[in-house]
Amino acid sequence: MDRRSFLKTSALGGTAAAATTLAAPVYAQGKKTLTMVTSWPRGFAVLDDAATYLNNMVNEMSDGTLTIDKKAPGELVGAFEVFDAVSSGQADMYHSADYYFIGQHPAYAYYTAVPFGGTAQELTNWYHHGGGHDLHNELGEIFNLKSFLAGNSGSQSGGWFRNEIGSAADFNGLKFRMPGLGGKVLGKLGASVQNIPGGELYQALSSGALDGLEWVGPFADERAGFQEVAKVYYTAGFHEPGSGLACAVNLDVFNELSPAHQKIIEYATMATTHIQLAETLANNGAALSRLQQQGVKTMQFSDDVWDAFGAASSEVMDENMGDDLFARTRESFEASLTSSAEWLSKSDAFYVEQRERVRNKG
Amino acid sequence: MDRRSFLKTSALGGTAAAATTLAAPVYAQGKKTLTMVTSWPRGFAVLDDAATYLNNMVNEMSDGTLTIDKKAPGELVGAFEVFDAVSSGQADMYHSADYYFIGQHPAYAYYTAVPFGGTAQELTNWYHHGGGHDLHNELGEIFNLKSFLAGNSGSQSGGWFRNEIGSAADFNGLKFRMPGLGGKVLGKLGASVQNIPGGELYQALSSGALDGLEWVGPFADERAGFQEVAKVYYTAGFHEPGSGLACAVNLDVFNELSPAHQKIIEYATMATTHIQLAETLANNGAALSRLQQQGVKTMQFSDDVWDAFGAASSEVMDENMGDDLFARTRESFEASLTSSAEWLSKSDAFYVEQRERVRNKG
Repeated sequence: MDRRSFLKTSALGGTAAAATTLAAPVYAQGKKTLTMVTSWPRGFAVLDDAATYLNNMVNEMSDGTLTIDKKAPGELVGAFEVFDAVSSGQADMYHSADYYFIGQHPAYAYYTAVPFGGTAQELTNWYHHGGGHDLHNELGEIFNLKSFLAGNSGSQSGGWFRNEIGSAADFNGLKFRMPGLGGKVLGKLGASVQNIPGGELYQALSSGALDGLEWVGPFADERAGFQEVAKVYYTAGFHEPGSGLACAVNLDVFNELSPAHQKIIEYATMATTHIQLAETLANNGAALSRLQQQGVKTMQFSDDVWDAFGAASSEVMDENMGDDLFARTRESFEASLTSSAEWLSKSDAFYVEQRERVRNKG
Repeated sequence: MDRRSFLKTSALGGTAAAATTLAAPVYAQGKKTLTMVTSWPRGFAVLDDAATYLNNMVNEMSDGTLTIDKKAPGELVGAFEVFDAVSSGQADMYHSADYYFIGQHPAYAYYTAVPFGGTAQELTNWYHHGGGHDLHNELGEIFNLKSFLAGNSGSQSGGWFRNEIGSAADFNGLKFRMPGLGGKVLGKLGASVQNIPGGELYQALSSGALDGLEWVGPFADERAGFQEVAKVYYTAGFHEPGSGLACAVNLDVFNELSPAHQKIIEYATMATTHIQLAETLANNGAALSRLQQQGVKTMQFSDDVWDAFGAASSEVMDENMGDDLFARTRESFEASLTSSAEWLSKSDAFYVEQRERVRNKG
């Protein structure tokens, strides 16, 4: 499916759709259907892939007794309205990226990614074995949500630019799309940061409303077609080193599910992250090669630019420390990250370095 | 649970147990129980953890309509007899590491780990999105098995030694435990390589039957107690950079399951790898610190030793190329690994390097 067919078949998120009736679970012949609102146009690689894996798994494992009716942005609510829709009971569940909701609570940043945070594996280590899921649920209870991570983008690319970034000063005045706390970091560097739903990005970059943007990584970005409009691509970024995708169920709806259905959702979210992250990583390399064949120049930011990202990131993180739950979440996350990262540097990272050294010699 | 209680409560694998009756699925009140034989003593970290996650998930998601009766080594068959037991229908399924079965077919090495192979993530990328699972099933059909990966140890440590390894020559004559193709590599370097079930290793190292061994990584190794007997520990190894654990179901038994039960097993294996690998990685750092506090010296092999591992590994891999399925599996795996590794070097690895550089500066 190419980019143009998305634009035809998907509404563009935002506030276009008005839903006037509550979407309560449907019971028919002992079967239950939950309405899922998402932030992703249908067919968007990585993101809609994750929602689709999850929903198929739930349907298959429950033998069709629990099905999920997925709504793209605009079909029930806009891309960024899914949180409020599920919190209020207008929809039963959402699939999105929780850093879209740092306006509701800044701690939601941690369930997607924070600047200079964890890779997908480091996030998973914290989430399941370092207290992350408990904190996610504590946060969810404020908003009447039961939350799960369900998907991961892997390390996100630094993004698409019309011109190379020679120094951090080049961000000054740049109209750039970046959500979450990463966007606030670029704001410190003088960028005019905008958060725009994925379905509207191609148009914004084409029209000049944006000078540049980051979306996900080669597999997703290629399908969105950004290579048609910008030709400079940075493959590593500071802002989302392994972004979790989130599935949240209205807490009242979740509590009414049978224990088996609850467990099917919980374990399906884990299986979704496992198979969808791997799909993304298995496809990024070939997608990057195709982008290069279309004239895209792939680069890395210089050490100086990374230093500027680092200094601005510390400022942004510290600004949120007045909130107790944010502070506890940060402390929990960083303790886990330090331990994970130290071990991985002595095992996986050391191994990969030796493997590549030995292979390139042979 | 400490090491001593394992030794009391678990049989030591090998050929001690003789099972004379076929363990057919039990049907009672619409419920089905499958008998699972494993290669792990009860409570063994990482390995038995994975089997336990899997079995609990199946039970919970099926609402108890499908349960798994897990047998430790010696309770029905020995640790390395599980493959033949399930292939023949003596047991319904096994949880093990498929490289124990390279005697049955050398291609089984790829479903645990091969020397200089993939990390856990690289293995997963290939398995689910590079043709790996299809090849696993092609292999399984030869032996009447339906196979899944279910768990991963992460990057395994180089192992436990009484003395430091100054050069590759120090492996000459060393009585060392290492299964799979990695063991054959050490054999090329002159080691006397033995494969011994996990439950027997502590005793073998204590008695001097072994001069050294590799088991898994700090979290598993600490619980097995090797730090009481050897004091030199290499944290990265060439032999198992991300070992998959495997669950195989007798193909006739699997085909008789309902589609929903089949899917519950399939997705539970993915969720198992997701949560159990994260548990291992979340715990390795703290376990390593505790080992150091007990007087263990942690090290890395020198570049010269890695070069020797590399040369011997190439020999061992090439020796198996006469088998068509091994050759096709190797080709498929290496194509996926090359693509995965190239992308990860430009994204995750570059990011982590910058993150640690920036953090250590700040």
